[in-house]
Amino acid sequence: MSDIDRERNLTLNPKFDDKGLITAVISDADTHEILMIGHMNKQALEQSLSSGIVHFFSRTRQKLWKKGETSGNILNIEDMRIDCDQDAIWIIAKAEGPTCHTGVKSCFYRRITDIGLEKL
Amino acid sequence: MSDIDRERNLTLNPKFDDKGLITAVISDADTHEILMIGHMNKQALEQSLSSGIVHFFSRTRQKLWKKGETSGNILNIEDMRIDCDQDAIWIIAKAEGPTCHTGVKSCFYRRITDIGLEKL
Repeated sequence: MSDIDRERNLTLNPKFDDKGLITAVISDADTHEILMIGHMNKQALEQSLSSGIVHFFSRTRQKLWKKGETSGNILNIEDMRIDCDQDAIWIIAKAEGPTCHTGVKSCFYRRITDIGLEKL
Repeated sequence: MSDIDRERNLTLNPKFDDKGLITAVISDADTHEILMIGHMNKQALEQSLSSGIVHFFSRTRQKLWKKGETSGNILNIEDMRIDCDQDAIWIIAKAEGPTCHTGVKSCFYRRITDIGLEKL
């Protein structure tokens, strides 16, 4: 499928990168905050779509990763969108508990300022 | 800097990937919509911080890219955050005009459904 077709038509045809991954950004359905950014391979995307629960591909462990599989802090999918060239996915989710492994709601807990980082 | 240091301290130390890039997601300051996802190298990040206007690294053209440099549809930075392991950036921006090169506000103009894509 050409890039133009990818932009215009209504067929899901994700453009996975050279490692077989696509970027997925998760925002909170209630607060609109961005909770985290992760990566999905074909299987993770399929599992997310079929289960309604966010699955990633863990680059560290090189395996399918159901987000919250050990902590219980799963992400329930409310809406999923794809961008123009189909190389990024935006998921709007309801989070059960904190999303970040550090125990806070969002992984984006620090602001970038002129002099460094600032805790929110 | 170790991964634990990257998570805990207040020093900006982005973890660029093997191509020297970091993922940047842009959301709209007013609507909270995600407008686009792009990539920054060190120079693009520095230019974004110093100018207050979003700059990316164009992977297609392999050069610094001030978003909107030809269209005029620039992204004015209101807030910038970095995630736990400092490999992703979230920018909250005021957009001057449509962000997507297809002429619409957000690159995420299609929903993923069970049977394909749906225009929003």
